[in-house]
Amino acid sequence: MSEESNDKFKIFSLNGNRPLAEKIAAVCGVPLGKSTVKQFSDGEIAINLEETVRGFDVYLVQSTNEPVNDYYLELLIMIDALKRASAKTINVVLPYYGYARQDRTAKPHEPITAKLVANLLSNAGATRVLTLDLHTVQVQGFFDIPVDNLFTMPLFAHYYRRRGMVGDDYVVVSPKNSGVQRARSLAEYLDTTIAIVDTAEENDPDSGYVIGDVEGRSCIMVDDILNTGEVFSNAAKTLMKAGAKEVVACASHGLLSPPAKENLDAADIKDICITDSVSTDPARHPEKLSIISCSDLLGEAVKRIHQDQSVSPLFTMEKKDFE
Amino acid sequence: MSEESNDKFKIFSLNGNRPLAEKIAAVCGVPLGKSTVKQFSDGEIAINLEETVRGFDVYLVQSTNEPVNDYYLELLIMIDALKRASAKTINVVLPYYGYARQDRTAKPHEPITAKLVANLLSNAGATRVLTLDLHTVQVQGFFDIPVDNLFTMPLFAHYYRRRGMVGDDYVVVSPKNSGVQRARSLAEYLDTTIAIVDTAEENDPDSGYVIGDVEGRSCIMVDDILNTGEVFSNAAKTLMKAGAKEVVACASHGLLSPPAKENLDAADIKDICITDSVSTDPARHPEKLSIISCSDLLGEAVKRIHQDQSVSPLFTMEKKDFE
Amino acid sequence: MSEESNDKFKIFSLNGNRPLAEKIAAVCGVPLGKSTVKQFSDGEIAINLEETVRGFDVYLVQSTNEPVNDYYLELLIMIDALKRASAKTINVVLPYYGYARQDRTAKPHEPITAKLVANLLSNAGATRVLTLDLHTVQVQGFFDIPVDNLFTMPLFAHYYRRRGMVGDDYVVVSPKNSGVQRARSLAEYLDTTIAIVDTAEENDPDSGYVIGDVEGRSCIMVDDILNTGEVFSNAAKTLMKAGAKEVVACASHGLLSPPAKENLDAADIKDICITDSVSTDPARHPEKLSIISCSDLLGEAVKRIHQDQSVSPLFTMEKKDFE
Amino acid sequence: MSEESNDKFKIFSLNGNRPLAEKIAAVCGVPLGKSTVKQFSDGEIAINLEETVRGFDVYLVQSTNEPVNDYYLELLIMIDALKRASAKTINVVLPYYGYARQDRTAKPHEPITAKLVANLLSNAGATRVLTLDLHTVQVQGFFDIPVDNLFTMPLFAHYYRRRGMVGDDYVVVSPKNSGVQRARSLAEYLDTTIAIVDTAEENDPDSGYVIGDVEGRSCIMVDDILNTGEVFSNAAKTLMKAGAKEVVACASHGLLSPPAKENLDAADIKDICITDSVSTDPARHPEKLSIISCSDLLGEAVKRIHQDQSVSPLFTMEKKDFE
Amino acid sequence: MSEESNDKFKIFSLNGNRPLAEKIAAVCGVPLGKSTVKQFSDGEIAINLEETVRGFDVYLVQSTNEPVNDYYLELLIMIDALKRASAKTINVVLPYYGYARQDRTAKPHEPITAKLVANLLSNAGATRVLTLDLHTVQVQGFFDIPVDNLFTMPLFAHYYRRRGMVGDDYVVVSPKNSGVQRARSLAEYLDTTIAIVDTAEENDPDSGYVIGDVEGRSCIMVDDILNTGEVFSNAAKTLMKAGAKEVVACASHGLLSPPAKENLDAADIKDICITDSVSTDPARHPEKLSIISCSDLLGEAVKRIHQDQSVSPLFTMEKKDFE
Amino acid sequence: MSEESNDKFKIFSLNGNRPLAEKIAAVCGVPLGKSTVKQFSDGEIAINLEETVRGFDVYLVQSTNEPVNDYYLELLIMIDALKRASAKTINVVLPYYGYARQDRTAKPHEPITAKLVANLLSNAGATRVLTLDLHTVQVQGFFDIPVDNLFTMPLFAHYYRRRGMVGDDYVVVSPKNSGVQRARSLAEYLDTTIAIVDTAEENDPDSGYVIGDVEGRSCIMVDDILNTGEVFSNAAKTLMKAGAKEVVACASHGLLSPPAKENLDAADIKDICITDSVSTDPARHPEKLSIISCSDLLGEAVKRIHQDQSVSPLFTMEKKDFE
Repeated sequence: MSEESNDKFKIFSLNGNRPLAEKIAAVCGVPLGKSTVKQFSDGEIAINLEETVRGFDVYLVQSTNEPVNDYYLELLIMIDALKRASAKTINVVLPYYGYARQDRTAKPHEPITAKLVANLLSNAGATRVLTLDLHTVQVQGFFDIPVDNLFTMPLFAHYYRRRGMVGDDYVVVSPKNSGVQRARSLAEYLDTTIAIVDTAEENDPDSGYVIGDVEGRSCIMVDDILNTGEVFSNAAKTLMKAGAKEVVACASHGLLSPPAKENLDAADIKDICITDSVSTDPARHPEKLSIISCSDLLGEAVKRIHQDQSVSPLFTMEKKDFE
Repeated sequence: MSEESNDKFKIFSLNGNRPLAEKIAAVCGVPLGKSTVKQFSDGEIAINLEETVRGFDVYLVQSTNEPVNDYYLELLIMIDALKRASAKTINVVLPYYGYARQDRTAKPHEPITAKLVANLLSNAGATRVLTLDLHTVQVQGFFDIPVDNLFTMPLFAHYYRRRGMVGDDYVVVSPKNSGVQRARSLAEYLDTTIAIVDTAEENDPDSGYVIGDVEGRSCIMVDDILNTGEVFSNAAKTLMKAGAKEVVACASHGLLSPPAKENLDAADIKDICITDSVSTDPARHPEKLSIISCSDLLGEAVKRIHQDQSVSPLFTMEKKDFE
Repeated sequence: MSEESNDKFKIFSLNGNRPLAEKIAAVCGVPLGKSTVKQFSDGEIAINLEETVRGFDVYLVQSTNEPVNDYYLELLIMIDALKRASAKTINVVLPYYGYARQDRTAKPHEPITAKLVANLLSNAGATRVLTLDLHTVQVQGFFDIPVDNLFTMPLFAHYYRRRGMVGDDYVVVSPKNSGVQRARSLAEYLDTTIAIVDTAEENDPDSGYVIGDVEGRSCIMVDDILNTGEVFSNAAKTLMKAGAKEVVACASHGLLSPPAKENLDAADIKDICITDSVSTDPARHPEKLSIISCSDLLGEAVKRIHQDQSVSPLFTMEKKDFE
Repeated sequence: MSEESNDKFKIFSLNGNRPLAEKIAAVCGVPLGKSTVKQFSDGEIAINLEETVRGFDVYLVQSTNEPVNDYYLELLIMIDALKRASAKTINVVLPYYGYARQDRTAKPHEPITAKLVANLLSNAGATRVLTLDLHTVQVQGFFDIPVDNLFTMPLFAHYYRRRGMVGDDYVVVSPKNSGVQRARSLAEYLDTTIAIVDTAEENDPDSGYVIGDVEGRSCIMVDDILNTGEVFSNAAKTLMKAGAKEVVACASHGLLSPPAKENLDAADIKDICITDSVSTDPARHPEKLSIISCSDLLGEAVKRIHQDQSVSPLFTMEKKDFE
Repeated sequence: MSEESNDKFKIFSLNGNRPLAEKIAAVCGVPLGKSTVKQFSDGEIAINLEETVRGFDVYLVQSTNEPVNDYYLELLIMIDALKRASAKTINVVLPYYGYARQDRTAKPHEPITAKLVANLLSNAGATRVLTLDLHTVQVQGFFDIPVDNLFTMPLFAHYYRRRGMVGDDYVVVSPKNSGVQRARSLAEYLDTTIAIVDTAEENDPDSGYVIGDVEGRSCIMVDDILNTGEVFSNAAKTLMKAGAKEVVACASHGLLSPPAKENLDAADIKDICITDSVSTDPARHPEKLSIISCSDLLGEAVKRIHQDQSVSPLFTMEKKDFE
Repeated sequence: MSEESNDKFKIFSLNGNRPLAEKIAAVCGVPLGKSTVKQFSDGEIAINLEETVRGFDVYLVQSTNEPVNDYYLELLIMIDALKRASAKTINVVLPYYGYARQDRTAKPHEPITAKLVANLLSNAGATRVLTLDLHTVQVQGFFDIPVDNLFTMPLFAHYYRRRGMVGDDYVVVSPKNSGVQRARSLAEYLDTTIAIVDTAEENDPDSGYVIGDVEGRSCIMVDDILNTGEVFSNAAKTLMKAGAKEVVACASHGLLSPPAKENLDAADIKDICITDSVSTDPARHPEKLSIISCSDLLGEAVKRIHQDQSVSPLFTMEKKDFE
């Protein structure tokens, strides 16, 4: 970025995913802004901005994985501080959007927490949001401020194509009956078709069966969130039973909540690929884990937003990118 | 409903679907409120409430199919009139929610019109919304006022079970790669599994192929919106090619936009079942059309809402309901 | 405008009055921005911005004459698209403001649709409005965003003065008992007095009578909206009966709704002058129609707004302008 | 009103027009609620509610004539107190709406103070407004909460008809070129026509001339606000010069700002009729003043609003009311 | 409460202080409503209302002490659920208001988290708040919805008067230079005067000195929040050094964050009295702890609010209450 | 300030404190913008901006002392005018914030007028506020727009240090039991301790007594608002009775409401120092009055805000500033 445009541009990070924030800042060629976030003895969060933001476009990086409530409060309090300190714009970068799955009233009397979160962020003073592979794209419409939702499928496509995992020997599998669109998108990049693992009885993994043709083919399972690994490990079992040649898996957001490591190490999955949208303790990592970084994607988006350039080129990656 | 609670309760209809509004009012045991809706020579809509609504809970029935923009303006203007005439609450009953499919930015720079509509309704003064089988359930979260979204799957389940269309001889099919959840829900009611019709090349119906097993089975296609019938007719072709025994179809909202009649009459579909959520000219109806009414469902919901009873029992219909 | 300020400035047109939008863009020295507006088979409007607006000041030209509801939905959906695509400001140019006459509750229980429209525009995301000869100037106060309302009287004054229609041989006539202020304004420009055509019985044109002195004088009728031509044609009859020498007419907004052509061709009116604020099929034009353009006025206003110059000079035109 | 409905119903008055508030309360059969309004030594207003309003529908009577700013602050502070003290609804009764004439930007860079006032009242917590003969009816649309605007013309019609002032011997005159609608409305009640007093040069009363026929007829001038009496006194002079037989005048709101008494006592006006919407010191009253009360009208409206009855019957008074 | 009014009235508790919620419900004579609050493996909170609230006035009890962020998210999510489930009103009972001390920007660039919290609660859908001894009373003004802030000083006054701790042998002490008003209030109840412990060097407890006269008198220290006990223990030391006869202490909200037990057990304080506004593990309790309940006060307030009675009598307790 | 940044920067003054506004403008090196503020015969305020503000950052200086309601209406109307005239930002400079003391409900049913004022300003269109020594700092949190609250204590510290009034011979006294923080702050600057004057019986000045040690020391009383002088004069009496050597006083805002001059001239106070935040008639000034100007402080803040520099350096003045 030119000197001039950097003049009025700062990136801050909270505690959610500082390593990623640092990489994003590096992509933009600026250091992270200085601020302190601490907790008092009674658990209350105290935030202090240690440099002026008056008149600056501020980009605030926070992943809201566990401890999700602490990380959201950090984020809301920081937005309040930036607003009162007269930041010109407050652009929230949410590589992982906690509570995104609570996006509808699945049962009567339920909250729609993903919408609540959207309202809280807007109400606190956020003026724009940048997200990565939202659980459902409709969550964009929960906001009335601009939301740029970047996709991870091109990253995974790149990962698999580099390994030659293209064409009819492979099949992209949605490990559950939702999420078919995501599988569909990856399959297009890999010039192949999709299959779905469904369960006859909800909550009974043994009732799993495959919709579509996987026999003798290598299965690439894809999901947005990898939490305890149960979904992947059950689906892998069903796929192998159905005659799959082998199974790999990828997921945008690797929460890896215990007992993810146990589940995945025990599962018949050759390789698990996630992004660094969520920062986790290496002790939680399964053995066959590959991590690809979303920092170039997010950093490039921050640059383009700040320079008023279209981010559309980032939404897709042409096939020729792989040739 | 008791005399007393009716005291402060009125149902009005606009031009979208007056026959359905009359049936809903009949379920509630009240006549439709009097109002006039006319268009001036320059196309502007003039609405006049012809009875007082001061202090009343008002339920306003409007389907927003074609001419969708006129029907939305009717609705917004009527809400404004009710608000200024001091209605206590303004409950919008939207059996068909126009623009519901524009619920995300599918391509860069697109609007999210379904959210715009939600904002317009709330901003005009609506205090609650009652919908029927929203295109995506996340649209509920586009509102911050209470939204009760009723499901049509139990109605269709009832329709097919009465005809004995249950079990492994049947398969519920989503005619496109989205909408799998809806097929999944109906399949559970009919004790069977699902399949999906996908297309290898988007927009090339001849590239259609089936994911899942349909050979020798009767296929029940299900979708939320039946517009020109192309999706159903292409999917039927693909299913028959894949060895299906026969194909029927159901859809919650029968828009039947031309050339739906031509498409569907030419298609190899034995029976097409829709609800009366949208009112269309019989001249547009394909020959094999069955219409089931959603008026009991909506009328019962209106009654329960007005009497502060839970509407949860309406969200689901137990299997025993079919025995 | 300088290169530099054009950098961040785009004008878009919707379907309401594309010829006028093109003229306005020409005045500003920029091409119209690219976007598509289409209707699906079910009547829903789909809008796609085909160029980036991120960080741009956008001026959006739309006249909301018939089909008024379609044109308003186009406008609202486009505003939503611009907002989500991160336009810096969204300036709505409304040469004709549909529903402007519904500006009060004339009868009990009526809506105030002109206010509803103002709220919808603001709520969707408009940040400024530019209008032309609003039906009542109080409509400006329906908005809390800045509204610049330009006047057409100087344009008509110029038109008549060039023809020497000045002084006591002429009288400016309001063809109905409202709109007296507009007649008063034009009369001042033409150095003469006013008269009014009133009706003893509302809705009975034969009960028309003249307040003021028109005998032997040429009458210049003035109104804001020329819809079916009935008001002008009835008033002309009354004026001729009252001894007027001859009658001409002007109106800011020529809707010319049928049977305007029939009415006006049959009326004893020598010349009818309108602006191009509304675009109509030439087949609807009466024979004696003159059209003057408001594009210089609106284009100049857009330039001044974009360059942060006062638009006050446009509100009035000094007499010396005519010498 | 029944005991029961009174249970939850209180009327409070501020300092603007306590005599009228007492009459309104008497019409409703309740005493005024207790509250104190005092000013500290530094001019700040202190308000204390001296009885509970928790859960009550509160009607708050305030005329905002001079000192208009003090009276508006009283009103806003009282609304805040009522809101925080948990009143169920806060219904503002504004017999006289100060700043109503600032309803448009007459010159560039002007505020629209009538809209500002509407926003302030809504923002403070008012839930409904009841007004009397607004300067322009469009001000209703400045609010998004319900506004009932009552008309005084039936009261004046009654006053004149009782005196036999009906028919062609009389002419209703608007003393200025705006306000023609008001004259038109009164003329209909009195079975006669209208005339207008205009001035050739604005601000030069000697340039006044009459539009319409007043020779030999008794003129009934009508205006909404009687401030210093200059408009009436100048118009009377013009009318008498034009051959009027005699002149009387009526106005809804008698501000009677000095030197109104001097102006009107010196003018050739036989009778001046106002309502008690504004309370003024009798020392300011001209000799020929008649005051009719609007308390029945306002009191009846308050009763109807509280009992959820239509107020439409109050908007008009049928001719048979005079027989 | 009468049967009738209970019909539409429910009290729910979240996890913050369920024992107190149960006591409040008992005072109101109703059972707590059923709901589940659980955390998923990734830390996200899931709330389900297990009974209908449609049309009900709901009182929601939550103390927001540690883990304060989890408890606030519980509260916000529950409010969202209640709003969408059509509760008539949502009354938040906050015996302890976490983040109340962050009520101003003490240093540049700081947030005002107490205001943020107020905004979040209102934005989520709370319609009223009931608090207990807010850190600063100005926090009431952070809300635009009604807030009833109850005082604990009468409870402590009662506690000490019952023990005869009244008159000149006693002195009420503020253990820091803020909070003087609270000491002043308790002193009035106990018919005595106040003193203050200040520190010459902020953060240096050894620099403490006494303002006012404590020699030979028994000191009753009073504060709103008892966190780690450092403030009390340092002040006690300073007071004893200054010749105090003995020292006791009371605080409205006993957070007792470690090492409060160690600090207080080691301090020269004869008795420490707190309320049950915060629920803590008994293992954290210092030996000399007395707990008085605020459940009668809060329960009575809930009853009065629900029955639209004034809560004013609860704000104060007359001296005669102690005789 | 550089030419360039001045381009888009204007300062306007209303009638509250024009002399101070002129000094502030001089500090910024710009003339005051032209506008007229007049009152009509009926007391209504008319404001006209006489130069363009389109696209400008506007700073609007108004002190809202007596006549406080007129001054607030001036301010609100001017904000409305600026907003509609398209000012880019509207920065309200409030050297004295009228109604700031009504910041809580001291008694049941009271308004919180300081919050009402904050809401009115924001609602009218203010985008930022600059205040001076707010009565309570929590009032900052009444706003959701940025508020910079400057402190006067460094000014008074400078005043006293220049006179050598430092160290143990002096004691800073709060003349009432609130306001201790302000005394504490000044005492730190003067390297000394504090004392408080309290009253045993509220409203009985003879019951005054001193908390802390003043015997033989010179007392510097400090308060934020000097209204009628009673508080200072009573406290001085109490202090002298308690053995003080002499008494001086300072207050940020000198309202000097009658009979302040009488009270203060009669009191045993050697010197009274105020700032020029409030402009008063010299006839009201007590004999021993010193006025120091806050114009440098406010002017510097305006410059820094306009140039997007941190205002933090203005919040404090280091001790070395006095050496």
